[in-house]
Amino acid sequence: MKKRVLPLSRVYQLLEPGPVVLITTARGGKANIMTQSWHTMMEFEPPLVGCVISGRNHSFNILRATRECVINIPTQDLAKQVVGCGNTSGSMVDKFRRFGLTAAPASLVEAPLITECYANLECRVADTRLVNKYNFFILEVGKAWIDSSQKDPRTLHHRGKGAFMVAGKTVKLPSRMK
Amino acid sequence: MKKRVLPLSRVYQLLEPGPVVLITTARGGKANIMTQSWHTMMEFEPPLVGCVISGRNHSFNILRATRECVINIPTQDLAKQVVGCGNTSGSMVDKFRRFGLTAAPASLVEAPLITECYANLECRVADTRLVNKYNFFILEVGKAWIDSSQKDPRTLHHRGKGAFMVAGKTVKLPSRMK
Repeated sequence: MKKRVLPLSRVYQLLEPGPVVLITTARGGKANIMTQSWHTMMEFEPPLVGCVISGRNHSFNILRATRECVINIPTQDLAKQVVGCGNTSGSMVDKFRRFGLTAAPASLVEAPLITECYANLECRVADTRLVNKYNFFILEVGKAWIDSSQKDPRTLHHRGKGAFMVAGKTVKLPSRMK
Repeated sequence: MKKRVLPLSRVYQLLEPGPVVLITTARGGKANIMTQSWHTMMEFEPPLVGCVISGRNHSFNILRATRECVINIPTQDLAKQVVGCGNTSGSMVDKFRRFGLTAAPASLVEAPLITECYANLECRVADTRLVNKYNFFILEVGKAWIDSSQKDPRTLHHRGKGAFMVAGKTVKLPSRMK
């Protein structure tokens, strides 16, 4: 999948619709993946993303220690991998190997990009004030990659208990909103 | 539109997919509506929702003063109203009147429910620690209403600059995730 750099000012267009994401972290040369949906944009540029990562997840301690991760955005063709990564723990399983995903080096962080995802956002932790109470990390996106051949990406949107809404068509409305 | 009370434990299933919402506030008997997409679930039960409301919005000061609002979830048939509420300011316009929306009394808060929205979440502000720096409010949902006849609601998901993804079909995957 050929990707180009996406201007940071456009990152919000990827996360604002609420897709399920795969968050990669790495420590000591060992990478992990977790499935995640509780995230929101918090600022346009530099893009800030708030996200909840439960202390029960293997990724929590890695993210807290390394302060780096990649937000990878999968589409419908990766549904099996999305569910698989959500149902297993990185403390037991090498998820890249188990689910046939490819790790590619990022440019700013040690955590890898998932090649099969149509977009990848390299992030550093910017604020941990709400981590103790809510497991809420504020991330700053430093570099964004996109496969720009995908115009209407069929992202997955979690409705709970295995139900996922698949992104439908995009309509254009006469909005002056950014 | 006939609605029933939705158990609070299921609220995340409405917001997690990332729909555009209409947030209502009220002060001194005057209600306002704003269009909003930067929100995330933060806890299952009681449901906590984090959301960014810019200080440039008329609703910001009302929410900060009253500490109450309603998150209303519209579907595709309200696209014109969603865009209209996003392109106007409550300091100039009575948005209920302008866009033909119906205000119904909530049970816990002064802010009204929008009758035409298929779901309504009555909220109180639970934490303002990140308001000064990020305009980020943490809301607790105290009561939730839903038109349960809508099984696959065609929610709108903002992609920026007037582009909205319309929720597609829902698929069921063998997930053990909540």
